[in-house]
Amino acid sequence: MGPTDEWFHGQLKELSEDECLELLASKQVGRLVYVDQDGPLAVPVNYVLDGGTVLFRTSPHTSLGRYARSGAALEVDEIDDYTQSGWSVLLRGPAEFVDPDDLPASSERRPTPWPEGVRTLHLRIRPLSVTGRRLLPG
Amino acid sequence: MGPTDEWFHGQLKELSEDECLELLASKQVGRLVYVDQDGPLAVPVNYVLDGGTVLFRTSPHTSLGRYARSGAALEVDEIDDYTQSGWSVLLRGPAEFVDPDDLPASSERRPTPWPEGVRTLHLRIRPLSVTGRRLLPG
Repeated sequence: MGPTDEWFHGQLKELSEDECLELLASKQVGRLVYVDQDGPLAVPVNYVLDGGTVLFRTSPHTSLGRYARSGAALEVDEIDDYTQSGWSVLLRGPAEFVDPDDLPASSERRPTPWPEGVRTLHLRIRPLSVTGRRLLPG
Repeated sequence: MGPTDEWFHGQLKELSEDECLELLASKQVGRLVYVDQDGPLAVPVNYVLDGGTVLFRTSPHTSLGRYARSGAALEVDEIDDYTQSGWSVLLRGPAEFVDPDDLPASSERRPTPWPEGVRTLHLRIRPLSVTGRRLLPG
């Protein structure tokens, strides 16, 4: 790779936690990252923010329900292939089961999974860290 | 949630491995999933397919370079918030360091990281599994 290629490369800029939470609030879908018996994996989930935490739902029979309590993360991003720029936010922390009584009172503030099926298990991530980066166009 | 809400939920359909590889070939950016000292995480990377494997580049000083050899996955998706539908593909397997001599001869078929900086470490995932799902509009 020559110097010419380098000219087109974008700069990475760390985001503040406030910026990260604002970006998380601007989206509905992220990737839930966890580890099952075969190693690390990520699956799309739609989520809602509840205070500084993230709420989502799954089926009690998924590996997500079984394994995400040991350690998890939510990755959310928006990337433009054409300008090769965008941002990503990573919220890390174990997922915990949520008692239905502890859900937000308003149904609009509760997660409603997009796929059909019985997804009665509510999970919450209380983040241990929230970090993010913006990739500026080159 | 009442029965009315359920009507709008989409069906999940498993994709064949061929469909998954076709979808992977249609995109340039995915999320590299691995586990570091703080647990599971995912970061966007731009990748190229090389045969049935995935090539990407990073800096030798990143946690990605240090940890992804223990176990990794590449998650790629395309999701439409409006129709609440889309697809996701998950390619799982440990990442391995690639000798520069083993890279594809054509530079177009080699990965060129979008962010600036010294990313001299080439990594390859030889998948142990490639799976995917399509979420049909509800």
